[in-house]
Amino acid sequence: MIASMLRFLTSGESHGPQLTVVIEGLPAGLEISEEDLRRDLARRQGGHGRGGRQKIETDLARIVSGVRGGFTIGSPVTLVLENKDHVNWTGQMTASKEGFEPKVVTRLRPGHADLAGALKYGHTDIRNVLERSSARETATRVAAGGIARKLLGHFGIDVVSFTQSIGTVDIGFDGCDPDILTEDDVEKSPVRCPDPEASQRMVAAIDEAAEQGDTLGGTFRVIARGVPAGLGSYVHGTASWTAGSRRRCCRSTR
Amino acid sequence: MIASMLRFLTSGESHGPQLTVVIEGLPAGLEISEEDLRRDLARRQGGHGRGGRQKIETDLARIVSGVRGGFTIGSPVTLVLENKDHVNWTGQMTASKEGFEPKVVTRLRPGHADLAGALKYGHTDIRNVLERSSARETATRVAAGGIARKLLGHFGIDVVSFTQSIGTVDIGFDGCDPDILTEDDVEKSPVRCPDPEASQRMVAAIDEAAEQGDTLGGTFRVIARGVPAGLGSYVHGTASWTAGSRRRCCRSTR
Amino acid sequence: MIASMLRFLTSGESHGPQLTVVIEGLPAGLEISEEDLRRDLARRQGGHGRGGRQKIETDLARIVSGVRGGFTIGSPVTLVLENKDHVNWTGQMTASKEGFEPKVVTRLRPGHADLAGALKYGHTDIRNVLERSSARETATRVAAGGIARKLLGHFGIDVVSFTQSIGTVDIGFDGCDPDILTEDDVEKSPVRCPDPEASQRMVAAIDEAAEQGDTLGGTFRVIARGVPAGLGSYVHGTASWTAGSRRRCCRSTR
Amino acid sequence: MIASMLRFLTSGESHGPQLTVVIEGLPAGLEISEEDLRRDLARRQGGHGRGGRQKIETDLARIVSGVRGGFTIGSPVTLVLENKDHVNWTGQMTASKEGFEPKVVTRLRPGHADLAGALKYGHTDIRNVLERSSARETATRVAAGGIARKLLGHFGIDVVSFTQSIGTVDIGFDGCDPDILTEDDVEKSPVRCPDPEASQRMVAAIDEAAEQGDTLGGTFRVIARGVPAGLGSYVHGTASWTAGSRRRCCRSTR
Repeated sequence: MIASMLRFLTSGESHGPQLTVVIEGLPAGLEISEEDLRRDLARRQGGHGRGGRQKIETDLARIVSGVRGGFTIGSPVTLVLENKDHVNWTGQMTASKEGFEPKVVTRLRPGHADLAGALKYGHTDIRNVLERSSARETATRVAAGGIARKLLGHFGIDVVSFTQSIGTVDIGFDGCDPDILTEDDVEKSPVRCPDPEASQRMVAAIDEAAEQGDTLGGTFRVIARGVPAGLGSYVHGTASWTAGSRRRCCRSTR
Repeated sequence: MIASMLRFLTSGESHGPQLTVVIEGLPAGLEISEEDLRRDLARRQGGHGRGGRQKIETDLARIVSGVRGGFTIGSPVTLVLENKDHVNWTGQMTASKEGFEPKVVTRLRPGHADLAGALKYGHTDIRNVLERSSARETATRVAAGGIARKLLGHFGIDVVSFTQSIGTVDIGFDGCDPDILTEDDVEKSPVRCPDPEASQRMVAAIDEAAEQGDTLGGTFRVIARGVPAGLGSYVHGTASWTAGSRRRCCRSTR
Repeated sequence: MIASMLRFLTSGESHGPQLTVVIEGLPAGLEISEEDLRRDLARRQGGHGRGGRQKIETDLARIVSGVRGGFTIGSPVTLVLENKDHVNWTGQMTASKEGFEPKVVTRLRPGHADLAGALKYGHTDIRNVLERSSARETATRVAAGGIARKLLGHFGIDVVSFTQSIGTVDIGFDGCDPDILTEDDVEKSPVRCPDPEASQRMVAAIDEAAEQGDTLGGTFRVIARGVPAGLGSYVHGTASWTAGSRRRCCRSTR
Repeated sequence: MIASMLRFLTSGESHGPQLTVVIEGLPAGLEISEEDLRRDLARRQGGHGRGGRQKIETDLARIVSGVRGGFTIGSPVTLVLENKDHVNWTGQMTASKEGFEPKVVTRLRPGHADLAGALKYGHTDIRNVLERSSARETATRVAAGGIARKLLGHFGIDVVSFTQSIGTVDIGFDGCDPDILTEDDVEKSPVRCPDPEASQRMVAAIDEAAEQGDTLGGTFRVIARGVPAGLGSYVHGTASWTAGSRRRCCRSTR
């Protein structure tokens, strides 16, 4: 049985007029407000070492379809996140030929999809790639995730996540007890690691890497609690979002 | 091979702030303008016997993502159709609890999804259903279709459609020659039947039915010309509705 | 909400060792037997004017997965239909290089996908196309449909279909009353038209066309009875193409 | 653009007559033999600490559709893996009511889907779950993967994988150089770790855990080499299997 009943598509350029996400498949009667989504969007914008862009935008996901009087009505939910900075970018980003005055970008950023994207479509202006292969895109997924969280919450399922490792600083699989972990434990840390001491060392590691013009990878874990046994599928891989047992809740275990 | 590489989701209530469609999968470099879409949207609003709603709205599909300087850039294209009438409906249609003052609709329209929708979700206010099970929703699909038409046009494929029958008036499978049919032949008729005489009889039949408080069904045919042989699939049904040859271009043949 | 929870893939060449269909998404506990499928498969093989191939094969869909002791267990159901004639075709159809002795087919059948398929893949042996673009392929879909019928039957939904028109012989939309139609009414006719007199005229029309080396198209209607209101979706087209107008309404009855 | 053009469904119970996989979307003209798949299937059956079941079966994937004279023809490819042991299980596993003599299993295995599956469908005989939630199911995916490997190989892409860690033994992200790694380097190790010394420690760790009736988790890395830049998508998450650069080739980076 196909477990997933939600479909969504995201869109929007980093400096375009807006980001958009359409989510199809939500039942009617789910209570959702713009306020509900604000907290997740704010969390996305925090974190030690994030770029300056995060600071200009205080994201608000405007609900423009699918919700009436505070409750979903069964039709697709559309969220719009305006890019407040767009007014300064209309010459670069207008959809029309008229008024289009691009400053062509030719410098490829390492660690992004810039080169791959340019080769894929033959773009000579890298802006055509970077406007989409941008951290900004994740805002729509965070907003969509906020709605999924509301749906799961209705069934007593809650989802928390935290940073297990950054660079060589690793609290290990047993570094935190997922059964008692709270979101506050996580949010207190600028790198979202519930272990305060490790958290400090992670910050130091990031700063050290930054000084050398480098970045660091890491590991995060997502814990879903209250998931009823039997949700998902064990009979076919493609649809098998199963999670469930605590031991499987993080993808790479030791 | 899965022939379809385009995915889209539509959203929006009939009296909500906007209709939206996100189209994913378009290649970069396709020339698209809001003007391109205007003609199809205007055609949708014409036709003998359409409801009054069609007259208030002169639809414009605003491109808010995926197009830069007149050309697609490879990222999802988002079209927004504002509902100009929404300002008069904010109390009915606001997403928030605040300011929500619904006038509950309890009368079920026959021939619509009103009853089915109400039973599906347990709605007591039928507006929750009718706002989506509305002809207005088709505007997004027309706009998306306009973009698909541009993509096909790039490959020398054009698509025309016409009305073959309304009620008992039927020009038959051989009633028009699809090889020489032009869109103008179709547009001249208020019911989009390229046969002028039959067209008049169709108008009369509609008027007669309307007098009796009834409506009429009909048959339309879609002709795709210039489709290269080999497009689509003959090996698997799910992905392979391709038509192609003239004989198959309409689903019900004689 | 995506209404469909069943996925399936069919495979198999017309003269290969077997046809196969894998059906994923059936719940556990549904009673299914090879006998259940036999009737639909036999119906597929009947009908006035069918080719000679239909006569050699008396299809049996062997259940090789997903069913235990007469009931589905929740895992994918696999049906295998052996091609009894395959023993005479091993030199033509073997998957291996060894023993492969093809008699190359170069004659393209009109009204089939032969030309399109040959152009699609550059086949010089048309057998590579015709083995799949063959009426034989439909046997797997009939078998899969038989299982879907069992699932629907569990919920009190039954599905009957009949021929409304062949060539110019048409019993019209009101030519049969779908509420009282039985499968026996349909099966009595060699062309599956419940109107005995029209049925005879259809047979005559087919014979006449055959004499001229031609074939005839037609219209069939599918009636689903007992469908609960609210099944399906009115909010999004992709999952809910349900027709609507009376002429096309073959899908839903008056 | 949806990068994936291949779809597949697997089926089959661990002690049923056969495992099956249907793969749809392969182009015509790809050279494939049963011999090609044998090696991957044999690799699947090796490895320190595998269960006894692996020893009885020497899997052969029989090609029963989609391939003719050694080359794909564009239609779906079906692979059948017979369960040689099935003859001893017909009373337990027959699809029919007749001859069905189940020995009901009520003991739930920890670390499997047994409990979840039983609760999902209300099974009282756990065999209904364990026959599918079994390592045996992976044989079909290995066989399908073997075909995907052939397709990628045609474009100069090769895929190797290895074990990076088992329990606390971890060779780290820099523990092997993916550019020069060969499959032989991996296959020499009973746990597929290319570092011989770490490999020995992993074997010891497994044995130690086994003595305590426990198992160990681990990390593996998959390296795709020769992937052309631009494959995949950077514009939408759902379809974006991109991998590509070496740095991203393993999901958990340092």
